[in-house]
Amino acid sequence: MTYCLGLINRFGMVMGADSRTNAGVDYTSAYRKLFDYSLPGDRILILCTSGNLAITQAVLHQIDRDIQRDDGEHLHNIATMHEVATYIGGKVREMQEKDRPWLEKDGIDFQCNFLLGGQIKGEPHQELYLIYPQGNFIQATKETPFLQIGETKYGKPLLDRTITYDTPLEAMAKCALLSIDSTMKSNISVGPPINLTMVEANHFSVRHTLQLRLGDPYLAKMRSLWESYVRQAFESMPNVEWEANQIDSGEDVLID
Amino acid sequence: MTYCLGLINRFGMVMGADSRTNAGVDYTSAYRKLFDYSLPGDRILILCTSGNLAITQAVLHQIDRDIQRDDGEHLHNIATMHEVATYIGGKVREMQEKDRPWLEKDGIDFQCNFLLGGQIKGEPHQELYLIYPQGNFIQATKETPFLQIGETKYGKPLLDRTITYDTPLEAMAKCALLSIDSTMKSNISVGPPINLTMVEANHFSVRHTLQLRLGDPYLAKMRSLWESYVRQAFESMPNVEWEANQIDSGEDVLID
Repeated sequence: MTYCLGLINRFGMVMGADSRTNAGVDYTSAYRKLFDYSLPGDRILILCTSGNLAITQAVLHQIDRDIQRDDGEHLHNIATMHEVATYIGGKVREMQEKDRPWLEKDGIDFQCNFLLGGQIKGEPHQELYLIYPQGNFIQATKETPFLQIGETKYGKPLLDRTITYDTPLEAMAKCALLSIDSTMKSNISVGPPINLTMVEANHFSVRHTLQLRLGDPYLAKMRSLWESYVRQAFESMPNVEWEANQIDSGEDVLID
Repeated sequence: MTYCLGLINRFGMVMGADSRTNAGVDYTSAYRKLFDYSLPGDRILILCTSGNLAITQAVLHQIDRDIQRDDGEHLHNIATMHEVATYIGGKVREMQEKDRPWLEKDGIDFQCNFLLGGQIKGEPHQELYLIYPQGNFIQATKETPFLQIGETKYGKPLLDRTITYDTPLEAMAKCALLSIDSTMKSNISVGPPINLTMVEANHFSVRHTLQLRLGDPYLAKMRSLWESYVRQAFESMPNVEWEANQIDSGEDVLID
């Protein structure tokens, strides 16, 4: 499994990913899932991947080959983020066309998802896309300024409660890290190293990158601190008011 | 969708459930999913249900009919909780045998899960079971003193962080309510009324029951209070320490 997320708002963008890949529970390994295709000074392009590793690696290989050949459109000459998303969706479709019949025969999951975040000089603001296995895509908006791929559920309640279009950039980074850590705690198939990247709006170089490895003392410190704060929050809550909300006996009971 | 959970430890047991049932997103309705089959003074038996509503209702009907006929084993004369779980698993298998071929033909999901919590006089402690659509079951243990069915992921991080075998009973109830509310916030297919029941260990009558309906001001108060405490906890966390954990450029990069 995988957990990747992107957060974007008026102040900038944060993208993060775990690194655990598994084929069943008895074969897990670490593969990087966050890739920086930026061209400093001209464009920021961050990609995160989830799903079938052979397919996502093949798509990245195609992307890379096109940049090296430089004889057609590629990630370093396409003019808008929307076109970059279309280009990557096209690569996904090519790989699906090529490999899917072979995978389908043996019942192997051929799904893959990409997050694409960035900004190209001349465009008014950063953009964040989720590209589906079918090659089409959606874009994050002011109303829901984040997108997730992979094991998305454990880490979503914290995002729902803290992230808005006006959240400061450093708070978004903190939230991304805690969202990944919550997912790791509840699902063993999501694991370190964690990669995290932060880019200010209208800046064309990455502001910060970070990698936290297995057993990293900083990660352990953040987790234990967060757990103690969550427990404090929990203890501050009043107990359940049973009396005021008592059920009338038998009411709404289907079988009586 | 559905979210039900049971928590059990040295002090007692809490069980809770939402009430939303949907056939697609365009047909939702409210059905109770928490049922009290206790025989005060002799036994506590609380059931929660998830999955195919026709199958879970049919199983409950069978359970009820057996109690009324009183000419064989039923929920009010079986001697141990383990045998009650076996009995319910048997009813699930009967219904699956009867209906599954008809549902399978039309690609309809025939899965259903039950939580069973309680204690029968003469037994040393309360027990909590999760009964699978296949009729077999697992039991909650001291190490993981809770079980969930339905949409389990959004509400699990809070349980993982707060519930142990030594958590006071009132705190377990509070945690169950917040876990259900977190799930409702992140998944629209889980919704009120919420039912919650609390039973002390070695007590053979239900200590508290509660029902919270859609738009209940108490539920709204609890949610907004919890959100403000979670935000406080989040704001208390230090910002990400980027510098100390900076990635070496190119390190671990698959494609460069």
